[in-house]
Amino acid sequence: MSLKNAAPSERTRVKRGHLRANYEKQTIHDILDAMPICHVSYILDGAPVVTPTLQWRQGNHVYWHGSSASRMIKKSAKNQVCMAVTILDGMVLARSAFHHSVNYRSVTLFGKASVVDDPVKAEASLRTMVEHLFPGRWELLREMTDKELKATTVLSMPIDEASAKIRSGPPVDDDEDYELPIWAGVIPISHSIDMPENDPRILAGVEMPDHTKNFKIG
Amino acid sequence: MSLKNAAPSERTRVKRGHLRANYEKQTIHDILDAMPICHVSYILDGAPVVTPTLQWRQGNHVYWHGSSASRMIKKSAKNQVCMAVTILDGMVLARSAFHHSVNYRSVTLFGKASVVDDPVKAEASLRTMVEHLFPGRWELLREMTDKELKATTVLSMPIDEASAKIRSGPPVDDDEDYELPIWAGVIPISHSIDMPENDPRILAGVEMPDHTKNFKIG
Repeated sequence: MSLKNAAPSERTRVKRGHLRANYEKQTIHDILDAMPICHVSYILDGAPVVTPTLQWRQGNHVYWHGSSASRMIKKSAKNQVCMAVTILDGMVLARSAFHHSVNYRSVTLFGKASVVDDPVKAEASLRTMVEHLFPGRWELLREMTDKELKATTVLSMPIDEASAKIRSGPPVDDDEDYELPIWAGVIPISHSIDMPENDPRILAGVEMPDHTKNFKIG
Repeated sequence: MSLKNAAPSERTRVKRGHLRANYEKQTIHDILDAMPICHVSYILDGAPVVTPTLQWRQGNHVYWHGSSASRMIKKSAKNQVCMAVTILDGMVLARSAFHHSVNYRSVTLFGKASVVDDPVKAEASLRTMVEHLFPGRWELLREMTDKELKATTVLSMPIDEASAKIRSGPPVDDDEDYELPIWAGVIPISHSIDMPENDPRILAGVEMPDHTKNFKIG
């Protein structure tokens, strides 16, 4: 069994469609880096909750943040969480309903969330988020205040119990179905970045920065 | 308090950014109908798990499906789950790091998942999924076999404990920050449907159907 196919834990092991599984760090990092939107699940009063938020990666850790007063932050901190990052790449239309599928790249992470307690480290991590999304932006911004830092909690988790799952390519039909005169194929889907819109209250003469013009996702 | 602002349960009530909350059925249905990708969370061995899958709506119920052998299906069935549907509409760049945000439409559903036990109803529900995504496709496909139906489990949940959360529009900065010569605005994001790709093994003369040419998402 190659490293690519060795799951770091039983719950991380992809059971369904295991041929689509990939446990390589580089693959996992690439998916995390391509898609800031994630879904974090945690337990509240014995029941599962899932919340969309932004994630960013630094080295072997993933980070997310929120209002220090938020339920998601308070219930995730120091507890077991699961994070999913999913990029939809296309719809896969087969000759039978059963073999319809979706092309995607996804990562699932398990672990215990830690609070980045040190405000200097928390601010540095928020800077990493902004700079990953919009290179060069942090230095242009009005500085964070102590009050803002206190109102923000940054959580982190090591990328240890992680799996990626990827499907690409055309449908896979039953052998005999290839003889049927049914259209089959892939509808590719990607994220389109449309023309950025200036804030209506922007000062005259302020130009759109390159990190806005060049923004990409997915 | 208007209907729009009345949460159906305490855990459904949006606490952070409550001005973005919306509990109207029509708003919730519109978001569910626009985005088939969802994230379902459930509890496995006492820890939360979140799995991306497809959802579809019929009336006041949401449905999702999977292999009857899948962990997600087995652990969700008859248990408390939470489902999130999230559409990313843009990145919101403010004059301070703190006021950066994201434009989005999201729905969070809580409830107990039920198995659609009757195979006739299960197949009808799968038909609804295919027809919602690709109108007219079901009748063109090779029929589902009993074996395929047995291998597939359809789950459902009423859309009762549900909330939508929506952010749109430009950044909201601190009053004094509007005087700063910093670019601020919105980078709109949407899903782009690229040119559909014929399956390499498609029979000669089979034309691309309208439901492929007209596919939309988001």
